[in-house]
Amino acid sequence: MKTLIVHAHPEPQSLNSALKDLAVTTLEKAGHEVRVSDLYAMKWKAVVDAADYGSAASKPLKVARDSGVAFDAGTLTPDVRAEQEKLLWAETIIFQFPMWWYTMPAILKGWVDRVFTYHFAYGVGEHSDIKYGERFGEGTLAGRRALLSVTVGGPESHYSARGINGPIDDLLFPIHHGILYFPGIEVLPPFVLYGVDRMIRADYPDLAKAWERRLLTLESTEPIPFRRQNFGDYAIPSLQLKEGLEPTGRTGFGLHVRS
Amino acid sequence: MKTLIVHAHPEPQSLNSALKDLAVTTLEKAGHEVRVSDLYAMKWKAVVDAADYGSAASKPLKVARDSGVAFDAGTLTPDVRAEQEKLLWAETIIFQFPMWWYTMPAILKGWVDRVFTYHFAYGVGEHSDIKYGERFGEGTLAGRRALLSVTVGGPESHYSARGINGPIDDLLFPIHHGILYFPGIEVLPPFVLYGVDRMIRADYPDLAKAWERRLLTLESTEPIPFRRQNFGDYAIPSLQLKEGLEPTGRTGFGLHVRS
Repeated sequence: MKTLIVHAHPEPQSLNSALKDLAVTTLEKAGHEVRVSDLYAMKWKAVVDAADYGSAASKPLKVARDSGVAFDAGTLTPDVRAEQEKLLWAETIIFQFPMWWYTMPAILKGWVDRVFTYHFAYGVGEHSDIKYGERFGEGTLAGRRALLSVTVGGPESHYSARGINGPIDDLLFPIHHGILYFPGIEVLPPFVLYGVDRMIRADYPDLAKAWERRLLTLESTEPIPFRRQNFGDYAIPSLQLKEGLEPTGRTGFGLHVRS
Repeated sequence: MKTLIVHAHPEPQSLNSALKDLAVTTLEKAGHEVRVSDLYAMKWKAVVDAADYGSAASKPLKVARDSGVAFDAGTLTPDVRAEQEKLLWAETIIFQFPMWWYTMPAILKGWVDRVFTYHFAYGVGEHSDIKYGERFGEGTLAGRRALLSVTVGGPESHYSARGINGPIDDLLFPIHHGILYFPGIEVLPPFVLYGVDRMIRADYPDLAKAWERRLLTLESTEPIPFRRQNFGDYAIPSLQLKEGLEPTGRTGFGLHVRS
C-alpha cells in the first residue's frame, strides 16, 4: 500500500507530530511505502495568488480558470505539481492535523486551495443530461482512500449528537465529502482524539495503540458510504437528492450517506 | 455604526472586491465609520507558528497556551494586535470571501487562527457548575454582530435542503456558530450569491442593489437565534442540549438554533 501523509502542525514534538511519526514507522514496518508532506517543515505557501499560475495568470486574475490553464499546460509551480504527483502516486492519504476553530489549520486549507486546481480536482468530465461532471464518487483521484486523523481540544460529549459544537461527523462532512469525496476519494471513518488539551504523557501509550490498530486495518476498513452523484440518486442538473431514498426524518448532511 | 470589513480575495477587480468596495461606499455614505482589513493587500501571514508569540513561545511550542501568554503580556505581533483592536472597535463585522472548497480561503482561516488567540477569543471566563467559560453568546466580542458575504460558484439548488453539497446553513454553521458566536458575536443571516462562475457583467446591477439593501438594513436585521451556552439549555459540563427543547425530529446543527 502506497500511503501519503499530509501533516499540519508547527511543533515537531507535538502529539500530532508523534502520531505522524508513528504512522510512518507502523506502516513501513508492515511493508508499506510511505511519503510525507510535512507542510510546516516544507514551509508550504498557504495562500493562492497569481504567482501560482505563472504565465497562465490572467489580468484580472481568474482563480478557477487560470488554475486550469496552468494545470493543462503543466506550468503550475513545482511545489503544487509535486503534491499532485504524490496524490496520483498514493493509494491511501492520511491527513494529520489539530482541529482549530472547527476545521483544519490554514496551512492545510492552503494546501487544498492550491493543489486541488481546476481540471485536476474539479471541472473534470463531461456535463450532459445524465452526468454532471466527474464528481462525488468519480474523478481524478478515484480509487484512492483517505483518513482524517484529528486531535480535538474539548471532550467528546461536546461533539456528540446533542453536543454544543455539533456532531463531529457533521463538522467533518465539508472535508470528507466536499474536499475528498468530490474528486473521487473514498473516505474512511476518522480517527479522532478528544480532550487533548488535558491529556498527559501517561495517556499516550493507549492512544498510540489505538492509532496503530487503525493503521494496520486501513485496507479492511469500509469507507463512509456517501452517495455517488451520477448513478441515479440525484436529479441532474439540480443535484437534489430524489425523494424517498432516505430513512424517515433524516435531514442535512446525513442525506448524502447511504443507509 | 462602526463597521470592520475583513476581505479575502487576491484580485482587486473581482466580484468579491467590488462587493467590498460597494460596502465601503454604501456604509460611509449612510454616515457609518468603516475600516477594512484587505488580507491580500496587507500580505497577511496566514500560518500560525512560534514567531507569533515572540518570547512567549515555549519549547516545545504550545499553540493555545503560548498565544494566551503572549496576549496577556501584550506581546503578540503588531499585525495580530491591530486586528484584535479593530474587532474591539467594531460594532459590526462583515466578512467578504469566495467559498473555496466549502469554506473560507486559507488566508482568512489564517486570520482566524492567528487573531482569535487564547484569552482573547477562547479560554475566557470562569468554569463552574453553572458556567463553562464565556462562550456561545458571551465572551470578549459580545455586543457585536457579524455578517458573511459569500460568493459561491455553483447554483443554489446544489446548496438547498436536499442539494448534494449540503444545505448552505449547515456548511456555514462551523463559521457562524463555531468561529463567530463562540467569542460572543451575534450572527446575521448571510448574504450569499450563487452561480457566480456563470455570472456576466449585466447581472451585477441587480445583485449590487440587493447587497446595498442588506447593508442599509444591518441594524434592523435579527440575528440567527443560536442558543446561549450558560443559560439553562445545556447540561454542564457535558454541554449536551437538554432533551425536549427542539421541535420533533430536528437533529444536527439545527438543534442549536432556537425555534
